[in-house]
Amino acid sequence: MNAWWERDDLHYKDGQLVFSGRVVEDLARQFGSPSFFYSAGRIAANIGRLHAALGDAGFGGDRHGVNYAMKANRFAPLLTYLKTTGLCTVDACSPQEVEHAVGCGFLPEEVSFTATSLSDRDFDRLARLDGLIMNCDSLYSIRKWGERGAGRGIGIRINPAVGVGRAQNELLQYSGGRTTKFGIYREQFVEAIELASRYGLTIERIHFHTGCGYLTPQLAVWEKVIEECLWFIDQVDTVTTVNVGGGLGVPHVPRDEPLDLALWAGILKKHFLPRKLRIEVEPGDYLVKDAGLLVLTVNAVEKKKDTLFVGVDAGFNLAVEPAVYGLPFQPVPARRRQGEEDRVTIVGNINEALDVWYTDVPLSPLASADCLALINAGAYSSSMASNHCMRGEFREFLLL
Amino acid sequence: MNAWWERDDLHYKDGQLVFSGRVVEDLARQFGSPSFFYSAGRIAANIGRLHAALGDAGFGGDRHGVNYAMKANRFAPLLTYLKTTGLCTVDACSPQEVEHAVGCGFLPEEVSFTATSLSDRDFDRLARLDGLIMNCDSLYSIRKWGERGAGRGIGIRINPAVGVGRAQNELLQYSGGRTTKFGIYREQFVEAIELASRYGLTIERIHFHTGCGYLTPQLAVWEKVIEECLWFIDQVDTVTTVNVGGGLGVPHVPRDEPLDLALWAGILKKHFLPRKLRIEVEPGDYLVKDAGLLVLTVNAVEKKKDTLFVGVDAGFNLAVEPAVYGLPFQPVPARRRQGEEDRVTIVGNINEALDVWYTDVPLSPLASADCLALINAGAYSSSMASNHCMRGEFREFLLL
Repeated sequence: MNAWWERDDLHYKDGQLVFSGRVVEDLARQFGSPSFFYSAGRIAANIGRLHAALGDAGFGGDRHGVNYAMKANRFAPLLTYLKTTGLCTVDACSPQEVEHAVGCGFLPEEVSFTATSLSDRDFDRLARLDGLIMNCDSLYSIRKWGERGAGRGIGIRINPAVGVGRAQNELLQYSGGRTTKFGIYREQFVEAIELASRYGLTIERIHFHTGCGYLTPQLAVWEKVIEECLWFIDQVDTVTTVNVGGGLGVPHVPRDEPLDLALWAGILKKHFLPRKLRIEVEPGDYLVKDAGLLVLTVNAVEKKKDTLFVGVDAGFNLAVEPAVYGLPFQPVPARRRQGEEDRVTIVGNINEALDVWYTDVPLSPLASADCLALINAGAYSSSMASNHCMRGEFREFLLL
Repeated sequence: MNAWWERDDLHYKDGQLVFSGRVVEDLARQFGSPSFFYSAGRIAANIGRLHAALGDAGFGGDRHGVNYAMKANRFAPLLTYLKTTGLCTVDACSPQEVEHAVGCGFLPEEVSFTATSLSDRDFDRLARLDGLIMNCDSLYSIRKWGERGAGRGIGIRINPAVGVGRAQNELLQYSGGRTTKFGIYREQFVEAIELASRYGLTIERIHFHTGCGYLTPQLAVWEKVIEECLWFIDQVDTVTTVNVGGGLGVPHVPRDEPLDLALWAGILKKHFLPRKLRIEVEPGDYLVKDAGLLVLTVNAVEKKKDTLFVGVDAGFNLAVEPAVYGLPFQPVPARRRQGEEDRVTIVGNINEALDVWYTDVPLSPLASADCLALINAGAYSSSMASNHCMRGEFREFLLL
């Protein structure tokens, strides 16, 4: 029987974990650990699936675009690879990210920019870039961008005041519930339109981002969010594009089903095809999360009281999602040993109580020096890594 | 009326915030933002207070030692300053930290080492350092250290299976509740003693660390933890030192009272003075947290729906405690304006829902380009900073 996470490019073969055509144990032996490995093929397949779903829903050819949210993973070889595929453009959220994307081969006009709390210096750095695609998320952003006369067409990030977060995780709540810093609310929208008009800016796009990690069960709520957004879109007759943000999730635990993309695209079709709007989508997780493995080495297996701990050579500071956001990374031994599974708790090498990778998981037996892979480590891991306890060293490899 | 956080070296004078004898607005104007400023004088005063309390409790002269937990803040000038004062030695938790401490002027014999999930390579790096003070936190650590014959005297980190965390914060639970990776439990202690004996290692110290951020109301629970530890200490007649770890807290919000050090030291006196044990304590927060300011610039003040947001030029990635651990940093305008206070929510420049510095706090009015200080930013801030969204740039200054 296959494990829930197995798929064509990630599975056991003769007891060895194979990822993107490579034996993971061989990768670790040659390149060391802790190391992130990213599968270019998987990323391309993930983008291809999105394109197909949007095409099938009637948003063919130029009627849709995919902006990769580079804050998920800014590893330069990965960005350059994406540029060469021609499959996507980029979503950036700081001047530094824009410059990095350009450094990796993208043109400013291939960068969609949406950010919050920008400084005057930030606006100056952005305004000198020809063709940058700007979405303003506050009234003052419209003013600052207008003062610099940097672009005649803009997007407005709106906040529909309803949202969808994975498992009601408050940390991932971008809209809905308490008022957030993101976007322009209905109450300020008339003023936003007036401001844009005063500076001769044409509102071409409406942008919203409503939560992270949504899967099929959350699509009904997601549709409600979209319905709220229609009010904004219908206020501005110059809008040609709707940017539905990111947030498409991937399965983290056995009970998660993959997001039904046809259902997702069907909701977009229902609301936006009759309005003849172009669709932009800005996934991060959905493109790269399941394309990344964090490969670790077991330092020790030791029972303490009632718990069998597997201590590995990296801690939560290299990938904060499991500890901080409660989004577990399924651990997978690189070599599946015969024999009964042990129930183990995987822990890192950081002196912090939250440095636990996975609690009480059944795994085939592990021993010191074994190689262990954590799946779903392709997004918001290396990009958020810190040098806490000076344990910040890691390597990254793009598998082409 | 003074604010709850005001003190001799941090207060308003003629409407200007003064820190360590400097006008904060002048520091920001000259040295830019985001910047961390650390007061050497405050750190020395914090250590001095600890020494006095332990001395008054009967642990005079060599009967106690303070090991600064460098993972709280490893800024090199700060470490070198501490070395020159002679007021403390260092607690380190990775070979990289030990080497950094030595690079800053400490000797290996001035470094107390306690860590978890160490690799063979880690043990090799540690074993070559003459005089390093090793505390083993697992059975396999005793074995690995013994195999390398690197030290004849060791400490054992034990886990009393009861603990104390600030506000029952599970993220800061080192012992008690669920079995943790830290230390050796009662069930394994006999085996630990046998292992040490087999390798000719003398157990000179018992080490425990039971939680973070405790204040006076938590001292009763803390004493219960200590009582549990006595069982371990009484098993080994070669023990001369008890290391009570860190975890001494500082006030974060108005209702917090400072830790009553006399009460704290009295508990140590009651249990350890009759046993003629030397006391080691390993504070991080207590020494440097309230000696650090994070100085920011206001980018925008904008009302969204029902909330007045103050957007600043740095996000949670530079200091994760408020967003991740729920330990707020009181925001303080560098210049106190006349007029009624506004209720504001301070937010950063990162595209993440959790990037909120402080929710709904009354402050004197703020405007764009104003300077804002966050207090209590001296520990677990820069040391855990990441480059998320490529917003990782900051400066650090030691104020001597």
